[in-house]
Amino acid sequence: MSRILAVDVGGTTIKAAVMDADGTRVMSAAVPTPRGDAALDAVATLGSRLIAACGPVTAAGVLVPGIVDPDRRMGVYSANVGWSDLDFGGPLEDTWQVPVGVGHDVTWGGLAEAATGAAREASDFAFVALGTGISAAIMSGGRMLSRPGAQPGELGHVVIRPGGQECSCGARGCLETIASARAIASAYGVASAGEVFAAAAGDARARGVIEAATDALADGLALLVALVAPEKVVLGGGLSLAGAALADPVARALAGRVRVQPVPDVVLAAHRDQAGLAGAALLARTRQP
Amino acid sequence: MSRILAVDVGGTTIKAAVMDADGTRVMSAAVPTPRGDAALDAVATLGSRLIAACGPVTAAGVLVPGIVDPDRRMGVYSANVGWSDLDFGGPLEDTWQVPVGVGHDVTWGGLAEAATGAAREASDFAFVALGTGISAAIMSGGRMLSRPGAQPGELGHVVIRPGGQECSCGARGCLETIASARAIASAYGVASAGEVFAAAAGDARARGVIEAATDALADGLALLVALVAPEKVVLGGGLSLAGAALADPVARALAGRVRVQPVPDVVLAAHRDQAGLAGAALLARTRQP
Repeated sequence: MSRILAVDVGGTTIKAAVMDADGTRVMSAAVPTPRGDAALDAVATLGSRLIAACGPVTAAGVLVPGIVDPDRRMGVYSANVGWSDLDFGGPLEDTWQVPVGVGHDVTWGGLAEAATGAAREASDFAFVALGTGISAAIMSGGRMLSRPGAQPGELGHVVIRPGGQECSCGARGCLETIASARAIASAYGVASAGEVFAAAAGDARARGVIEAATDALADGLALLVALVAPEKVVLGGGLSLAGAALADPVARALAGRVRVQPVPDVVLAAHRDQAGLAGAALLARTRQP
Repeated sequence: MSRILAVDVGGTTIKAAVMDADGTRVMSAAVPTPRGDAALDAVATLGSRLIAACGPVTAAGVLVPGIVDPDRRMGVYSANVGWSDLDFGGPLEDTWQVPVGVGHDVTWGGLAEAATGAAREASDFAFVALGTGISAAIMSGGRMLSRPGAQPGELGHVVIRPGGQECSCGARGCLETIASARAIASAYGVASAGEVFAAAAGDARARGVIEAATDALADGLALLVALVAPEKVVLGGGLSLAGAALADPVARALAGRVRVQPVPDVVLAAHRDQAGLAGAALLARTRQP
């Protein structure tokens, strides 16, 4: 049976899984993401352990954040994890002894939603990954926006609150400073955004933090809609585990803000926070001998 | 000789020209844009007068603002001029007795800059038309963003000053309320933005109005750069007649705001405020028998 290894390097967690040809998971695993170049070793070790446990795979797909060069299979730059010009493809192929594809995490998460998720048959949509940071994959006319050396879709770094809180990018008032999973957790003083959503039923302060985040997200999405006019917005990443408690207020707020474009549907990613892994599996399939 | 008729319906002025095959203008003319459906009659009359004066043409290209359906050759919606579902192609073809193409003004202005202007050999650029309103044509990977029934590139309606001045679209703080030619003229209390640029050398208040506009424009462009990552921004429309007095401060301010993408070049449209007419001529050429 033709199995592949899928790896999604997030800002906080590296997720990996060995999958059967039909997408069934044989085994999955996760470790925290070390800062800087150490992330590469962590990926290599995690993948090797899964292969050792499950038996050989025929190819691997590895998704990384930031600016990615899929041809040279390098992580060009990641502010969140802290590497630059890090070669993933060569070392991982040496370690695992199978063909390795390297791609941009959110782009392939969006491609997974287009292939088997909430964006099937959509040629104009935005897949928004809400995690440690916020980033979007934008499909327009059936093509994913991309440009060598750049990364369209940096929704986390659109300024929605001029003069607001300082962002890791150096600007003030970026969407990420209010609506990322990290920002939501930090505003409420807990470790994860999930705790804030869990507390919301009984606590007005938690509801306030969530409302500030969903309002901010609608402000950012309104900018995206004005500029690229998607017919659908697909919410993924860890924050999408909150389900309707996230999607409903965002959809309502966005409908009130979109003026000169058709109002897009707002839906949850079918793969929820696993869209990256599903995308990594897609990428691995393109590398199979 | 194969001559064509080119018409660009702007928010304030309808421009038209008869051109030779090599793009040389035989004659041009302009009239104010009447509100609503009356714009169609004004286009028909202006075109007929030029044809009567210059002799027959073999095709015509008519550019209109707002949301456009090029297949049905209709102006679907224009907030600035005030029509909805207005058929241009059929009536104009009946009047002029030649094939008539109908297209979106800013899209074809951008295509003209790509064909014969400041965006030659660029596959990722934004053409920004700065006139009565502000709108952009965005080319990504060699494709102009477009979607039937929508109009990507509504840069004038990105909110850059939350809670700011009310815009014609109903939102507050849109880029258009500060940086359009109309907004600049109105902030200084004169009829045209050109007068404000002319006054700037000797008057600090004029300089203040221009600085507010170029800062706002850089804020809006920074959003566009974060989301679609163009390698080049081409400034066109009536405001581009201000030349370096517009482009230099915008380029400087934008360079200070772009964080997570390569900083794009900011250049003036080679066709300045005539990019629309050049685009209309391109469109007419596609309709020649």
